[in-house]
Parts: sequence; C-alpha cells; structure tokens
Amino acid sequence: MKRTEIRLAGAGGQGIILASIILAEGAVAADKYACQSQAYGPEARGGACKAEVVISDSRISYPEVRDPDFVMALTQKAADKYVTNLKEGTVILLDSRITLPEETSKYQVYQLPILDTAEHVIGRAQTANIIAVGAINSIFHICTNEQLFEAARKRIPQGTEELNLRALLAGEQMISGDQDEHP
Amino acid sequence: MKRTEIRLAGAGGQGIILASIILAEGAVAADKYACQSQAYGPEARGGACKAEVVISDSRISYPEVRDPDFVMALTQKAADKYVTNLKEGTVILLDSRITLPEETSKYQVYQLPILDTAEHVIGRAQTANIIAVGAINSIFHICTNEQLFEAARKRIPQGTEELNLRALLAGEQMISGDQDEHP
Repeated sequence: MKRTEIRLAGAGGQGIILASIILAEGAVAADKYACQSQAYGPEARGGACKAEVVISDSRISYPEVRDPDFVMALTQKAADKYVTNLKEGTVILLDSRITLPEETSKYQVYQLPILDTAEHVIGRAQTANIIAVGAINSIFHICTNEQLFEAARKRIPQGTEELNLRALLAGEQMISGDQDEHP
Repeated sequence: MKRTEIRLAGAGGQGIILASIILAEGAVAADKYACQSQAYGPEARGGACKAEVVISDSRISYPEVRDPDFVMALTQKAADKYVTNLKEGTVILLDSRITLPEETSKYQVYQLPILDTAEHVIGRAQTANIIAVGAINSIFHICTNEQLFEAARKRIPQGTEELNLRALLAGEQMISGDQDEHP
C-alpha cells in the first residue's frame, strides 16, 4: 500500500474522529504506518467536522493530508465543505441522503445508505461511523476484518461489541457484496 | 493563550490519545483552536506511544508540534524516548515512578503520583490518563473544570462518569492543592 491520504467528514457527534483512529490502528495491526489528526475551531461546533489519516507501507515523513486519495462525507454540510478541489480519480464515499454536487464525473463515487443502515438495519444511529469504517477497509484493503474489529473493540463501549461487529460487516458487505451482485 | 504545544507520552493502552482528544475538545469548548494528532508505526506496539495537541487563541496555521512547551511521560520508556532535546523552560510532567534523567535544571518539572492515585485512590488504573488531563488543565488553564468534564464525558464509557470526575478533580488538586499548601 503506497501512501494513501484519507479524509473523513461529517457532523460533530457522528464519531468521525473515532472512525479515523480505528482505521489508523487497523493499519498498524497490519504492519503499516499511520498518522491520524484533526483540527478544531470554535466555529466547528455544530457544523462540519473532519478527521484525517495517512496510511503507508513505509515510514511517513509528512503526516498531514495534502491531496486526499479518498474523501467521505456523511452529511450534506460536510460534502459541501470538503468535497471540493479534489484531484482526478479521488475516491468519494457519500451517504445516500446527500445530493451530489453537479460535476462528479472525474471522481470515483460510492453512494451508500450508511445512515439508513445504522438506523434501520443495525438499529442504532451511532453505528454509522463503524459501518463507514467497514466500507472504507473494503475499498482499500487496509487490514483484515479481524484486525479491524480488534481495533474497533478497543475503542467502543463495553457491551456494544456485537452491535459494532454487525455494523462493520454491513459496511464491508456494501462494497464486496456489491461486487458480487454486479460481476 | 498563545500557541501552546503539548506532547503526551506513555505506554499503549494508557489512554494517551484519548487524553489528547479531551484536552483539544476542552480547549474548543473554551473558544480556543486546537489540533490533535498522533503517528503510529509497527514498531510502536508495546513500546512508548505519544499524542500531540496544539492549542491557541487564534487560528492554527501549522498543526504539528515542533518545539513542545509541555511534555508528559507516564512511563520510564516514554520519558527516555520523549524527554530529550527540549527547549529551556519546557514544562515536564512525570509520573512519580519515573527516574528523572540527570540534567533537568533547565526545565520546570512536576513529578506527580498519577499511576498510584489511579490505582489506590480512584481504584482503577485506567483513570491515570484522566488524572493527567486534570493536572494539565490546572497547569495551563485551558478551560474550566466543567468544560473539561463535559469533554471527557463524551468520550468515556457510560457508567464511569463519577469515577472519571473524581479522577479529573484528583489531577486538578495535585496542582492547585499543591499551590495552596506552599503559598
């Protein structure tokens, strides 16, 4: 895995930071290097927030995301703010509730029912971030599902393991199941 | 509060990253700006880990810690690795179990019984990071105790609120209580 720059965006409270930490720790479990960061300002409260991860097979010299290879947005506000000025071929993951900006043909866009699945399939809105983590890992093959779940398990509340394992697998299935259906 | 660069170090599993996130989110609750980051490598597992926070009254242009104003080390390994090459006047917070490196006269050193207090006063070793957060906030006046507890409450397991509030106040008391005793 060459250097891959990942940006996750959503609303405060959606667990965007936690998602980025789980991806970083999953990467390390798979013997990769990772840097994870986020910036906060007073103006961010209630608005769009983002967290970033850089993952690489080799030591990371510059830890910040300059030109993301991947951007996820879970809310419209986050998409409006962060799905801009991206390079050609950027992989974009949007929740299905988001209206796409007009010009997306130069990107590779996944639009997945992350929030709906969290609320109506898993039964807990707060698992949206974990569904997203499962989908992202399935797109980039950062680590195995077992390594990813182990990374998640360390960071989620005790007693929610089964719920979050279902969320992780639901996210993974959105990508790999999709490929099976459209061979 | 001008730009303040904070580095926290300890062993994996001590909640160093969580501590840095709580400090960053406490700062934002107090209308400051914050950047939080950490880097992981395969070699870090089992060894010393660090997380960093930059806090400022104004927008932060460079998000990385270059020249820390504050370094905390909760383990000897972390102290050996990260309490080196610091500028004169750096504030250093060490757990009492750590043997100080020889030359510390150019630093401002606090040596506090963080691990012992977590284990024997609070009764839970895992609260050491929260005790540290309380002490650091008391040194730098990042936000009020209420804002800090609210930031912590969002990130700790449900049901551990009282335990962690006690830990936060124990840490705060180690600094401010100390000042009362030696006026």
